[in-house]
Amino acid sequence: MTFNAGLRPNGDMETFFKVKSVQEVLELIKRFQALDAEESPLAAARGRVLAEDVAADEDVPPFDRSTMDGFAVRAADTFGATEGLPALFTVVGEITMGRVPDLTVEPGQTARIWTGGMMPPGADAVVPLEYARPVDQTMVELARPAAPYDHVIRAGEDVKNGQVLVPKGRRLRPQDLGLLAALGREQVQVVRRPTAAVISTGDEIVPVSARPRPGQIRDVNTYTLAALIEEAHGRPILLGLVNDDPARLRAAVAAGLAQADTIIISGGSSVGVRDFTVDVFKSFAGSEILVHGVSVSPGKPTIMARIGNQTLWGLPGHTVSAMITCDLFIRPLLARLSGETDSGPAWGRTVKAVLTRNVPSVHGRQDYVRVRLEPDARTGLLAHPVLGKSGLISTMVKADGLICIGLNDEGLAKGSEVEVILFNS
Amino acid sequence: MTFNAGLRPNGDMETFFKVKSVQEVLELIKRFQALDAEESPLAAARGRVLAEDVAADEDVPPFDRSTMDGFAVRAADTFGATEGLPALFTVVGEITMGRVPDLTVEPGQTARIWTGGMMPPGADAVVPLEYARPVDQTMVELARPAAPYDHVIRAGEDVKNGQVLVPKGRRLRPQDLGLLAALGREQVQVVRRPTAAVISTGDEIVPVSARPRPGQIRDVNTYTLAALIEEAHGRPILLGLVNDDPARLRAAVAAGLAQADTIIISGGSSVGVRDFTVDVFKSFAGSEILVHGVSVSPGKPTIMARIGNQTLWGLPGHTVSAMITCDLFIRPLLARLSGETDSGPAWGRTVKAVLTRNVPSVHGRQDYVRVRLEPDARTGLLAHPVLGKSGLISTMVKADGLICIGLNDEGLAKGSEVEVILFNS
Repeated sequence: MTFNAGLRPNGDMETFFKVKSVQEVLELIKRFQALDAEESPLAAARGRVLAEDVAADEDVPPFDRSTMDGFAVRAADTFGATEGLPALFTVVGEITMGRVPDLTVEPGQTARIWTGGMMPPGADAVVPLEYARPVDQTMVELARPAAPYDHVIRAGEDVKNGQVLVPKGRRLRPQDLGLLAALGREQVQVVRRPTAAVISTGDEIVPVSARPRPGQIRDVNTYTLAALIEEAHGRPILLGLVNDDPARLRAAVAAGLAQADTIIISGGSSVGVRDFTVDVFKSFAGSEILVHGVSVSPGKPTIMARIGNQTLWGLPGHTVSAMITCDLFIRPLLARLSGETDSGPAWGRTVKAVLTRNVPSVHGRQDYVRVRLEPDARTGLLAHPVLGKSGLISTMVKADGLICIGLNDEGLAKGSEVEVILFNS
Repeated sequence: MTFNAGLRPNGDMETFFKVKSVQEVLELIKRFQALDAEESPLAAARGRVLAEDVAADEDVPPFDRSTMDGFAVRAADTFGATEGLPALFTVVGEITMGRVPDLTVEPGQTARIWTGGMMPPGADAVVPLEYARPVDQTMVELARPAAPYDHVIRAGEDVKNGQVLVPKGRRLRPQDLGLLAALGREQVQVVRRPTAAVISTGDEIVPVSARPRPGQIRDVNTYTLAALIEEAHGRPILLGLVNDDPARLRAAVAAGLAQADTIIISGGSSVGVRDFTVDVFKSFAGSEILVHGVSVSPGKPTIMARIGNQTLWGLPGHTVSAMITCDLFIRPLLARLSGETDSGPAWGRTVKAVLTRNVPSVHGRQDYVRVRLEPDARTGLLAHPVLGKSGLISTMVKADGLICIGLNDEGLAKGSEVEVILFNS
């Protein structure tokens, strides 16, 4: 009988003081540096983070353009024109799309123009087609006045030469790509996409393809963690399953360190195995244990270490705990490594709802509680706590999001308004 | 001078009555069928739509499991145990992870167990390690009572055999993949990802790589539309730029029909070129023009046609109009083709804000207005309308979302509460 080994306090005194709050872990994450920049074709840059400030080196558009099909005129010639008393113009020609006009609009003259056409010299406004009535082959009546620059986009109106338009640190949206296209940026500098090696541990865990024997269960965390990493714009590298064996775990971590920016081990949340994980992390030259336990539930046994700018994580094995700690810590880490600094407030990532039952908590611990949302005519949205142990993946499938009970709160009362952190969908 | 051709009403009478409201277009989209199913490895299935109801063909977990490191006991033996008066147990062994226990816990006995370990016969609860004090090599004191099944996940507690767990039509989230992993589904049936061919037109448009000559501007819509299609889980196929020439446009559409579920032409929003687009769509056997103009701003010149289950779209060339109509119509179309029926309410896709200036609108037209959001201590969020013509991509870059002014509204007053449809970020 050697169970005594398991009864001693967690490892040595050095790590005894590494229990951190969620906020402290997030502060530690800020110490890591954004990865190097690389070139990406514009068409592949959606969701990547820009690694350069992009400024305009020209006006967009570079010339005055019509925004309508119609007639280019001198605005002054149209003043007072109405349906009853239209102004009469001589049509001097038609603007060819994509070409410099070969005509000039003199007083009393007009030129046929199409949407996007370059305004001809002399003209400063467009009267739309629907207000034009042909008189004969050379004359047209325009039944509506135009103010100067009506239906014209002026040179530089979209973008002025020299303006910084898309800042470094911006995660690129469709419209950002559009603006970069307008500026002729066929290639852009983006931050390298961070990679995360995923390792599942546990002697009782078998691959998804296996039929578990009694006492065994299938590996869930590889799939949930890889998908969360993808959602957070990282690239998962699946290193599979490793037994609760320090030498094998060390080899897997070494393989991860050779190819990934962060290594995530889930499982091995037993006290004894947790010690393996810390010992394995420590066995690498230059490693430093930053966190050994977090005052959060679920997620208490979380371990964080660093080797230079690489991070190593020991996440709990319970699948709900692994998902929540991944979302809490790995998501902001990947944003940090991606150089994301211009993501703005997270509008729409939370919604307000009314709690439908009391939720107890413990002072000094940050609690995340799964909730299911239900529309409600009176209050807008109801948040029903989804009960169940943190080993039950089905509770996450039933839930729409999480509520957070702060370190200094001792629970939330039924009927109180809560902020629900939504899962992506 | 042949400008008269441009002055006649849009084409023939057949399409004259095809002006639709946004709601009518959305109803037309519901007539299209979900694409065929295909098999996907589970690890690649995030964001795909499940094409089968997945039911459990076994209990998960298949046996009672401990959720803690501790001691497996008969709960009744611990009743009344306290720090001051602990209960004394004989330790009969240790549970090996991933194996069927080779021992039975009799009254007064206990077995060492780890998180995830299979409960031994006889035991029905676990007392956590922290309440255990070794007495000698064979005896332990447990200083806390356990109720039956404390710290135990029972067989089938996560998932019961026969239960439908992940429904057909669900777009798969990380936790859904986790549940499918728990059930051993290494491969899943998902709906084929819809493809969308993107064609830009306009004699004045040049590729992003070109230096525009006077009168020319660069192709923006290829990039914004492709990125919006990716956001909507579609696969864009970039067919590039085509001149305003019916024969070339027809060839490009034919190429699109050969490989894509939907074909999206942007540009050619001039009256004459719109007629080209309709004529090209009509020239394909079995085609039907469904929409020729939508009572929406921006986006009025939108064209929609069908050939069987394939759709063909003529979107406006103005870049803001093209983005908004893509979001309004192509996004729900791709969800429809993907077989998405279980996406649930769009919590978090909108936020409430207070409008900072009057926004006029026209009765009988649905208006989408770009707004920039600003946090505000008093009201929560302010929505500032971003003014500017619909040809200005920079206005979309400045904006955080859109507000919609309904068909029957004649504008929104400064100070009113509005629902802002957020851009993805």
